Amino acid sequence: MTTVISSESARSAVEEIAAVASRRSTVVDLARAALSRAGEVEDRIHAFCCLDEQVVLESAEAIDRHGDKPLKGLVVGVKDVIDTAAMPTCYGSPLFAGHQPAHDADIVATIRRLGGLVLGKTSSTEFAMFEPTDTRNPVDLTRTPGGSSSGSAAAVAAGVLPVALGTQTAGSVVRPAAYCGIYGFKPSRGWTSTQGVFPLASSLDTLGILARNIGDLRLVYEATRSSPPPMRRDRRELRTVAVLPATEWGEVEPEVLDALHAASRRLQAHGLAVMDLDMPPDWVALPSRHETVMAFETARCLRQLLGDRVTEISPSSRNVVAKGETTPREEYEACLEAARRATEVLGHLCQTVDLFLTPSALGVAPSGLDFTGDPVMCRPWTLMGLPSANLPSFRTDAGLPIGIQAVSPVCDDLGFLDDLELLEDLLSAEA
Amino acid sequence: MTTVISSESARSAVEEIAAVASRRSTVVDLARAALSRAGEVEDRIHAFCCLDEQVVLESAEAIDRHGDKPLKGLVVGVKDVIDTAAMPTCYGSPLFAGHQPAHDADIVATIRRLGGLVLGKTSSTEFAMFEPTDTRNPVDLTRTPGGSSSGSAAAVAAGVLPVALGTQTAGSVVRPAAYCGIYGFKPSRGWTSTQGVFPLASSLDTLGILARNIGDLRLVYEATRSSPPPMRRDRRELRTVAVLPATEWGEVEPEVLDALHAASRRLQAHGLAVMDLDMPPDWVALPSRHETVMAFETARCLRQLLGDRVTEISPSSRNVVAKGETTPREEYEACLEAARRATEVLGHLCQTVDLFLTPSALGVAPSGLDFTGDPVMCRPWTLMGLPSANLPSFRTDAGLPIGIQAVSPVCDDLGFLDDLELLEDLLSAEA
Repeated sequence: MTTVISSESARSAVEEIAAVASRRSTVVDLARAALSRAGEVEDRIHAFCCLDEQVVLESAEAIDRHGDKPLKGLVVGVKDVIDTAAMPTCYGSPLFAGHQPAHDADIVATIRRLGGLVLGKTSSTEFAMFEPTDTRNPVDLTRTPGGSSSGSAAAVAAGVLPVALGTQTAGSVVRPAAYCGIYGFKPSRGWTSTQGVFPLASSLDTLGILARNIGDLRLVYEATRSSPPPMRRDRRELRTVAVLPATEWGEVEPEVLDALHAASRRLQAHGLAVMDLDMPPDWVALPSRHETVMAFETARCLRQLLGDRVTEISPSSRNVVAKGETTPREEYEACLEAARRATEVLGHLCQTVDLFLTPSALGVAPSGLDFTGDPVMCRPWTLMGLPSANLPSFRTDAGLPIGIQAVSPVCDDLGFLDDLELLEDLLSAEA
Repeated sequence: MTTVISSESARSAVEEIAAVASRRSTVVDLARAALSRAGEVEDRIHAFCCLDEQVVLESAEAIDRHGDKPLKGLVVGVKDVIDTAAMPTCYGSPLFAGHQPAHDADIVATIRRLGGLVLGKTSSTEFAMFEPTDTRNPVDLTRTPGGSSSGSAAAVAAGVLPVALGTQTAGSVVRPAAYCGIYGFKPSRGWTSTQGVFPLASSLDTLGILARNIGDLRLVYEATRSSPPPMRRDRRELRTVAVLPATEWGEVEPEVLDALHAASRRLQAHGLAVMDLDMPPDWVALPSRHETVMAFETARCLRQLLGDRVTEISPSSRNVVAKGETTPREEYEACLEAARRATEVLGHLCQTVDLFLTPSALGVAPSGLDFTGDPVMCRPWTLMGLPSANLPSFRTDAGLPIGIQAVSPVCDDLGFLDDLELLEDLLSAEA
């Protein structure tokens, strides 16, 4: 297995910010280190669609000249579907080659305002759908990194960056994180402004964060959410975990189910209550409901944006548009209504369950670069708008990452991050 | 005082939906009743900028022909800055006279999907800023209804509609609700998609709901929020209310302070703990911080949208753009950072305080139609993204509404609605 993963030497964003605050590093140092690491691996992983050394170093110098800021020392990658005023934004499409937005997306503006440095734009599948990039999985270069946040996941996994921004409309943050063996966090829907983010399906599009540890997820989450006040009053500790194999949604590979059960046993050994959850009947059809909603909205968005040029997009994207354009509005609306009904059971479940554990994907990263993998295990959670994250605690015997997905039954992102930290501790501890 | 307010005969949306569900009414009946009430008052209040009887009745017939739906029987008004595919949307500006969006805004699509009927577009100040409409306050026709959701507030107060949609970037939901004597609810920032809503200042823009009772606010809120799952686990009952006169923010009229103290006494008499809150030092400058953020973002939005035609907008709007264009980016960013710091105290406050009570506006609705009133008492809460609402429980001796603003220290909209219901009961009960 040809890999570019090195032995965990890369520092976290939290450490790098502390190093800059205490004058042990400058932002230019960090930028040079990231560019150097990119230089080592980029010709093999192709994580970036725009990486301009001169722009980066000039920005880093400017940040160093300014005073202290909360994110000074953060170096991030930004998925190519998120607008940046200083770099082209092509939405993963040749139709937008060289397209230069006038303004930063809100989330990019926030990061820059707080002293963060954008290293470059990371490759996205075409319009964040399924047409792959040439990005390779750093763990095994013969495999896909997953999509659509392909470059963000690869750059973080390969140690070029501690953190990168992604977006999830189906499974585009959690799935590539699972395939590349890193953390991927999709907060609850509406957690932050999506202004300046390519609008694919407005009922579903959610910004997400990819990182190698939960402290870095928290750092970027807290700095960039646009609903400011914490929702922590009377916060309950993580006590009860419900395991949901969700084999109703697809053919989950045995290795994934084994990892899920291993996780369950380890948590039980550390004193958590673990229960097996039968899938609520209203949830069985959620993946196909999601697919219908996404296709309907995507068709509308792309048709509005591209007009007749919609015929020039790739066949795989055209298929989604075609499905969406032939879906009757009544069917679309019935799917949204079914999604609403599917959330009703959460009101009861959250009385006893603090967290769901379920597969992040059907299996390990597929071989080859033609197929970015099936997002089916993420579709329902995106449709319901719940906070979800990939936990990269397991590997196959061959060393390929297996992702376990944690999902919160309530939209309390900060409490969810607390839970993830505890899970990370327990899953990595000896039983 | 010339008023068009009649003696509370108008039914609530909840009642109208129940009447349709039990076949005591049809949607056409309700549409005719609303059109008839509009016919009685509209030439005096000018709440609507688009009200097409034929379109309304055809839509109502179509809804009647379809099966049962959760909002079947809801008749709403939609502020003119919110896109509607079946009616023109002019953003309160002559530059967009006759402008016809291709699609409904997400919130309108949701309401229609669930069986709701849009009666018409309600008048908005120019681009939801300060240039007034010719709308009059139904309580006293010589006074402004407030802005920018002028028509929505007037139509609801006059009994034309039980519910209307508004938007708040400074104080555009809570203030007109206060002046017109109705409920106005601005949920926490990001509670629902703003796609298809005129983007004025993306850090601040929030959709809101105007109604004559809290049950109707809840109905529309629950049906239209895009973050679905309830956040009710371990919900705490309303026990402690902090009264914040906020005279640091502006010259609050004595009648408003009297009402605030009367509210405080009544709640105490009913067993709630009421404390006087000194304004946290970080909050004193929030109104001017808000003004800077809004001007900076508004200038950018309008310049991008209008290009050189930005010179053709009204002088009052041009002033905001001019302020925004001469604000250095550093100052704008410092204001956003100050807003972030200002929310930090909430983490402590919410341990002891369940709700703030504070004035909705400096006084009663100003005389005349030239000035829609000062939004200063709402700016800080909008900037911090907290759920807030006007409670219309008080009147001056002359019968003019005095608004008390309830604000939640945490972003728990559903819990906040529970609190509002309790407050409504206690404030209307005999002491």
